[in-house]
This record gives sequence, C-alpha cells and structure tokens, in this order.
Amino acid sequence: MSIRQPRPIEELLQVLTRLPGIGPRSAQRITSYLLQSGDVPVLSRALQEVEKKIHPCPLCNSYTDQRICAVCRDPTRQKRLLCVVESIADQYALDQTMAWGGRYFVLQGRLNPLEGIDGHAIGLDRLLQRIEQRLEVLRRVVIATSYTPEGDATAYYIIAAIQRRWPALRVTRLARGLPSGIEIEYTDLHTIANAVYDRQPENGKERE
Amino acid sequence: MSIRQPRPIEELLQVLTRLPGIGPRSAQRITSYLLQSGDVPVLSRALQEVEKKIHPCPLCNSYTDQRICAVCRDPTRQKRLLCVVESIADQYALDQTMAWGGRYFVLQGRLNPLEGIDGHAIGLDRLLQRIEQRLEVLRRVVIATSYTPEGDATAYYIIAAIQRRWPALRVTRLARGLPSGIEIEYTDLHTIANAVYDRQPENGKERE
Repeated sequence: MSIRQPRPIEELLQVLTRLPGIGPRSAQRITSYLLQSGDVPVLSRALQEVEKKIHPCPLCNSYTDQRICAVCRDPTRQKRLLCVVESIADQYALDQTMAWGGRYFVLQGRLNPLEGIDGHAIGLDRLLQRIEQRLEVLRRVVIATSYTPEGDATAYYIIAAIQRRWPALRVTRLARGLPSGIEIEYTDLHTIANAVYDRQPENGKERE
Repeated sequence: MSIRQPRPIEELLQVLTRLPGIGPRSAQRITSYLLQSGDVPVLSRALQEVEKKIHPCPLCNSYTDQRICAVCRDPTRQKRLLCVVESIADQYALDQTMAWGGRYFVLQGRLNPLEGIDGHAIGLDRLLQRIEQRLEVLRRVVIATSYTPEGDATAYYIIAAIQRRWPALRVTRLARGLPSGIEIEYTDLHTIANAVYDRQPENGKERE
C-alpha cells in the first residue's frame, strides 16, 4: 500500500542521503521543500555554476574560480606557516577564528584504508610537492586534523612522511585540551588527561 | 583576514541554508563534501531530472512523473476517504504507517498570514474543487496538520471552509494524545490534558 515515489524523486532522495548529516527523513523534507518552494531550478543552477567555474587551486588544493585562490594570492598571509586541513569546511572554520595568519593546504578528506582511501587519494603527494617547493621560506607546518581515530591516523601518516624527508622542519598538531565553555566535571576523562599533559606556561607562550 | 569564498560557492551556500534543517555550518560541510566527492554534477543532474519530469498531480496536488500520480491511480485506495496533508513529506510519513488506506490531497504548506501565505497560496481552492468533484463518493475528510499554532490555524480555516459549503460532510483531525514510547511523567501538560479529554473506549472504536 505504501507510496512508491516517482523515479526522479527517488533518485534525488538517494543523492541527498549521501550528504553529511542528511538522513532519509531530512532528505524527504528537503525534497518536499524544494518542490513546494520552486527552488529546484535555483539549486540546480547554483550547482551548475559551481561545476562550471570552480576548480582546485593549484597551490593549496582549496577551491577557487580564479587561477590561484584568494588565500594563496593574499600577500599578508605568512609564507613560512602552512596549515594542513581535511576540507574547505575545516579551513573556513579555522580561518574565521582569526587565530591563523598563514597559508593552507587542503587535503581531500582523511585516510580510510578500509575504503581504499590512501595517501595518494587524499592528496598527500601534492602536499609533499608543495612543501618541497616552499622549503626555503617554510618554517612551520601545522597538521589540523581532528583528535578522532581517523584524524590521528592521518596526522601520524603525514607527520612521518614529512619528517622522513625534512627532519629539520618543525611540525605540530593543533593543541589538545579543554574546550571553551564546558565544565570540567562534564568533560570526558581522555580530554581532561590531555589537558593535564599538554598544559602551557601562562607567560612566554610561543604564539605561531 | 577571514577567507572570502569564491562567488559560485557563496551562492550555493546561500541556497543550501534556505533548506529546512540546514544552517550555515551544515551548508559548508555539504558543499565541502560535494566538491571533494565529485557529487556536484550528480546532484545537479538529479535536480534537472526532477525539474524536467516532475509536476503536480492534477487530482491530489502531490508530485508525479505520470499524468496522474500512483496513489490516485491505485484502485485499492478507498475513494470515500480523503486525507489533507501539508507536504509530500507528511504524506509519505503517514502512508508508511499503513494506517491510512484512503486518498490524499497535498497542500502547499500551511497558512502564514504574516508572510502573505493565504488559503489560495496553499491550494485551498483546489482542495475545495476536488471535494466538490468527489462529493458523491466522498464520506470522510481528515485534516492531517500538526498540533502547532500554524497547523491549528490551517486546520480551522479548512474545516470552516468545508463545513460552510457541505455541512453534512464529516471532517476530523488526527487524534491528539500521548506519543508512543514516551513516559507520561516526561510528557508536557498540554499533551497529557489532550490525552485525557480525547480518550476513547477500548472497544467499539470506529476505525476509518
């Protein structure tokens, strides 16, 4: 008895449920909204524009509609600092904090050996090339992956690859510790332990 | 210092944040996923197919790629029962329960006088036309809007319009009461009160 939806709608639902954070019911709600609001052609047009005009930046692997992306063209960004992120979403979040004034390299996600996503698939070769090209000016590389099992594995893999080639280059990860605005008693023990191990002197911190 | 994203990406983000349940950060994550996975053309193609092939069913205002939708063509659906829903998402959720074996009429959302969404905008004229055409066979109309302020307003408006024209037609709304799987002590008082008022005899319920 249950409704079989028309094929084009079923196919749209299938693609939508592949998107991060979208389950079958959200996909249904979004489809319903798109049809009722008349936004189907609007979204379709926006995607076609992206498809036509956006391509990876040859320097940092982020996305741009110019030859070189705005960040790589920006002369105020310090060339001696390179931050390696997993996605443009992470890059954007990081940059909004204003805490980072250097350049970026954007990986294509993170390692997932079970699904055949290896160093080559996430763009590690291109990262190493990029580092090699900038070796004269580059001083610090920050690996900004999450402290999750995949993020850890990705970070270790990249750090090993860099240190094997250029042992003198300083490589760090983002600091582990207590998140802002959360009470210590509600924080998981692993996070508290890391906050104890990695504590920093309140004066004389190196800020870069 | 913060990154200005390329225009086509900003426009895509803008359209995505209009979708229900998608905020700026989800939009960024989805965009990031679309670019990295290569799904931009896949989603764009799916939308173009929907744009080309899907149109409202002339009988129930749901969406179809045929002349008449599958539900309206289905001879096993009872013609004397009509359920009025706000969206195809609601229609789909309702139908999956297998608790409704009648026909549907799909409104274009719900009344919102502040945004100029009146009875005409949500398709009330067409609902009334549809009822008039089926008056000989139609026995029951169920208004399946939510028990929210807008859902209530929409239901009252439709019920008034139907009863003014056809006082003999029986119109009901979905039952109010306790949701499944929730403890009474955690249920809000308004819901408990409704469950008390609208209680039903355990035998002799009218099941249609």
